Amino acid sequence: MQRTSFADMPCPIARSLERVGEWWSMLILRDAFAGLTRFEQFQQSLGIAPNMLSRRLASLVEAGMLERRRYSERPPRDEYVLTERGRDFRTVLVALLAFGHRHFGTSPNGTRIVDAHTGELADPVLVDRRSGRPIIGPDYTVVRGRAKAAA
Amino acid sequence: MQRTSFADMPCPIARSLERVGEWWSMLILRDAFAGLTRFEQFQQSLGIAPNMLSRRLASLVEAGMLERRRYSERPPRDEYVLTERGRDFRTVLVALLAFGHRHFGTSPNGTRIVDAHTGELADPVLVDRRSGRPIIGPDYTVVRGRAKAAA
Repeated sequence: MQRTSFADMPCPIARSLERVGEWWSMLILRDAFAGLTRFEQFQQSLGIAPNMLSRRLASLVEAGMLERRRYSERPPRDEYVLTERGRDFRTVLVALLAFGHRHFGTSPNGTRIVDAHTGELADPVLVDRRSGRPIIGPDYTVVRGRAKAAA
Repeated sequence: MQRTSFADMPCPIARSLERVGEWWSMLILRDAFAGLTRFEQFQQSLGIAPNMLSRRLASLVEAGMLERRRYSERPPRDEYVLTERGRDFRTVLVALLAFGHRHFGTSPNGTRIVDAHTGELADPVLVDRRSGRPIIGPDYTVVRGRAKAAA
């Protein structure tokens, strides 16, 4: 499918979407956060075709989200490790995870985020680091070019 | 392209991705948050082909993210308004926006979130509503099925 490049759009959301690529990339990053690093592990977890997985991994490396590291010379084998930028994508995945929990249910095998000390499910909310207040209207507004609307 | 359905996966991230559809849907939701409601407005903002925009709007209505409302009978015209579920997707877009700002720069015309009182750029961070602590390791862990890793 012919697709407009989002990279040229001035919006940081569009620019991020261009870099992260598509849904498989999000699920690969999710698995990387869960500790997977090897091609076979991603393939087993995702049930994705090998050529598609190769393409998505290469595109995440190119976007600076994953780093390729040689872990065996004979036979030559690489693993894929989150970069600092890749690790910073955690916020997006956690927000998506919380949204999915609220609207499309949970499952015993599903990904979830828990308090490491109590084991309780986390209830993520976005706040402004400076003020500590939740980022919702009317305290915060979305500004786009000259437009302005309640967040 | 043939694609696996993510809706059957047990993970809430995969289920959300299935519902939101693809990148255009994210940008349509972004524009809805900025106050756009009409077909022509979305089309002008996104530069998207009309048939593609129709499909994405219909899929967002089906997913319960947007509601179609008749605003003119002659000629018949509908507008698209965020539902409660759609408004709850704000967290994901805000997280993506902050990530984009940090890694792919900003622009004078780009979307940004500001403190409505001071005009200062918000610095979004995800915290646990209960404890108020940032959702990062080692305090919080990602659990997937029986697997466990640092968030």
